[in-house]
Amino acid sequence: MCPKLLACYNLAMKISELGEFGLIDLLAKMISTSQDKQLALRQKLILGIGDDAAAWQGDTSIQLVTTDSLFQDIHFTLGITSWEELGWKALAVNLSDIAAMGGVPEYALVSLALPESTEVDDVAALYQGMIEAAQQFEVAIVGGDTCRAPLVSITITVFGRTQSREGHMLTRAAARPGDKIAVTGSLGGAAGGLEMLEKGLQFDPETAAELRRAFLHPWPRVAEGQLLIARGVKTAIDISDGLVSDLRHICDASRVGARVEIERVPISLAVKAGFGDRALALALSGGEDYELLFTAGAGVIDEIKEASSCPVTVIGEIVAERTGEVTLVDANGEPFRLNTMGWEHFTAR
Amino acid sequence: MCPKLLACYNLAMKISELGEFGLIDLLAKMISTSQDKQLALRQKLILGIGDDAAAWQGDTSIQLVTTDSLFQDIHFTLGITSWEELGWKALAVNLSDIAAMGGVPEYALVSLALPESTEVDDVAALYQGMIEAAQQFEVAIVGGDTCRAPLVSITITVFGRTQSREGHMLTRAAARPGDKIAVTGSLGGAAGGLEMLEKGLQFDPETAAELRRAFLHPWPRVAEGQLLIARGVKTAIDISDGLVSDLRHICDASRVGARVEIERVPISLAVKAGFGDRALALALSGGEDYELLFTAGAGVIDEIKEASSCPVTVIGEIVAERTGEVTLVDANGEPFRLNTMGWEHFTAR
Repeated sequence: MCPKLLACYNLAMKISELGEFGLIDLLAKMISTSQDKQLALRQKLILGIGDDAAAWQGDTSIQLVTTDSLFQDIHFTLGITSWEELGWKALAVNLSDIAAMGGVPEYALVSLALPESTEVDDVAALYQGMIEAAQQFEVAIVGGDTCRAPLVSITITVFGRTQSREGHMLTRAAARPGDKIAVTGSLGGAAGGLEMLEKGLQFDPETAAELRRAFLHPWPRVAEGQLLIARGVKTAIDISDGLVSDLRHICDASRVGARVEIERVPISLAVKAGFGDRALALALSGGEDYELLFTAGAGVIDEIKEASSCPVTVIGEIVAERTGEVTLVDANGEPFRLNTMGWEHFTAR
Repeated sequence: MCPKLLACYNLAMKISELGEFGLIDLLAKMISTSQDKQLALRQKLILGIGDDAAAWQGDTSIQLVTTDSLFQDIHFTLGITSWEELGWKALAVNLSDIAAMGGVPEYALVSLALPESTEVDDVAALYQGMIEAAQQFEVAIVGGDTCRAPLVSITITVFGRTQSREGHMLTRAAARPGDKIAVTGSLGGAAGGLEMLEKGLQFDPETAAELRRAFLHPWPRVAEGQLLIARGVKTAIDISDGLVSDLRHICDASRVGARVEIERVPISLAVKAGFGDRALALALSGGEDYELLFTAGAGVIDEIKEASSCPVTVIGEIVAERTGEVTLVDANGEPFRLNTMGWEHFTAR
């Protein structure tokens, strides 16, 4: 362990005090200081910890790899999620990370932990949901691991590649002042769906179905990620933590600021119908919508709007000031403050 | 879901009744019947679920991928395992799967689940153990995922490749009658170490240190796996479930039988010293030794013994009779029965 590095951190604390992003930062620094630099070069590593996926140079393209875990009672509750929906979502959130790099997903590896009392037909339904997502996005499920555990957890690793050998890919670190900020689809649906299911809220059937779909059957923007690459976009992230929180990741990595006009944020119609005044807050910080958030010149975004089969909305712009900060403004250009600014897994709330 | 397939299984049962291998078998069949055959061809898939690692054809070699999870109180107990040992072991067991294919490990992705109350210096020690294993075996840790959970779990995915484009690799399915069965190193140490730590057994310092090392600091046989490939060996598995259980996996996959002379099984000296009469049972069915078990002609094994820096011992031979069965015989050639024949994760015991 590098004493100099660790002196910068107070290790006599709990990870809930350090926070998820603080922990990732510490671990990334431990690896980058202790890992043999020659090894990283030899392995042709391009992106390590800190973007949506890791990347290294393969022979005819860049290899992309991502992993995500869903834990029972942390990321899902079996009472409100069917096993089949859980299977779809577990794979979809990983495909979304490959989409956020502009990559082509190819293979998936599944690690399942299950209580011994789990019914076999529930596991079969879980796999059925994964297989549906795999077929939809042309991914081969190639293996995995099963073991018993007190709670259900699903860890999926997805492998993909860039479309070209040159390896153009979307990262978080290429936003430049003057870029417009745009988002695919609409936001807030997943958070609205979670709240509806947790609280047993009653809505009209169409609203209820859309909210449930948004939360439990997210559609990773794989085609859109590839379209962004084709049009020369360099910067994107998928919205998993929430619009503001994920935009801040881009600002941190690109060392820029961002200005978002809240009235331009595309709020899910179902969320507007179901949550009224709270719809904006759900769209800004709800998370789990798995839409793509990206930055590019205005002309490029116009071209993408034309070519995309899903809506694309400009919501603000990248600025040079206030590095790492996301400023929300209302229709009059007045600053707007939100109470909850995204969601960190470990931070005590 | 394929009704024909599922009719073969009784889904109204718990996975503890189906067993781990039954569950893997069901999931593999679900995937192979529902997965688009064209997709598998397009993706150049070589090995899916059912061997130590998945494999697909890359441009200059075959890509190998494996994943394994360690769950608190299932696979490890923090009272008897240090965080640093846990980190080493979590990566080592995955490297062992690549070794069992004769591959070269290159990259690792780490998914950590941690209770919020975890101390930051414990997480740093965990990573330190992983980094040591990564440096030792020249693997780059390229990313991962952290989240909170009620218990600690570590899922690691390791990527490797075959040494040549032709993609010679070790599988479970190539054993032929007449092959000798051989094993690297010695067996029983890991099971002995676990029992010593769980029961607080007292041994002389050298025995205690060796048993602890065998259980908590296993050495994946990466170099030996590559040596086997170089000498033309086709069949191997790493010993994770136990000698008899893992040899049975080879027999099942290769449709052959196996005959093991129990007096030739190399038992760990520390296990002999610490467990006396029970040493043989620990060596035959203890598991987690992460030695390589392989089959080849007698001449090839002699060459490997010469070239290997670790002991290699012939313990029996592959036979045409009793497909899928492992027969244990004593010095007089009389059948020998063992009570516990390896360990299935889900089976109620």
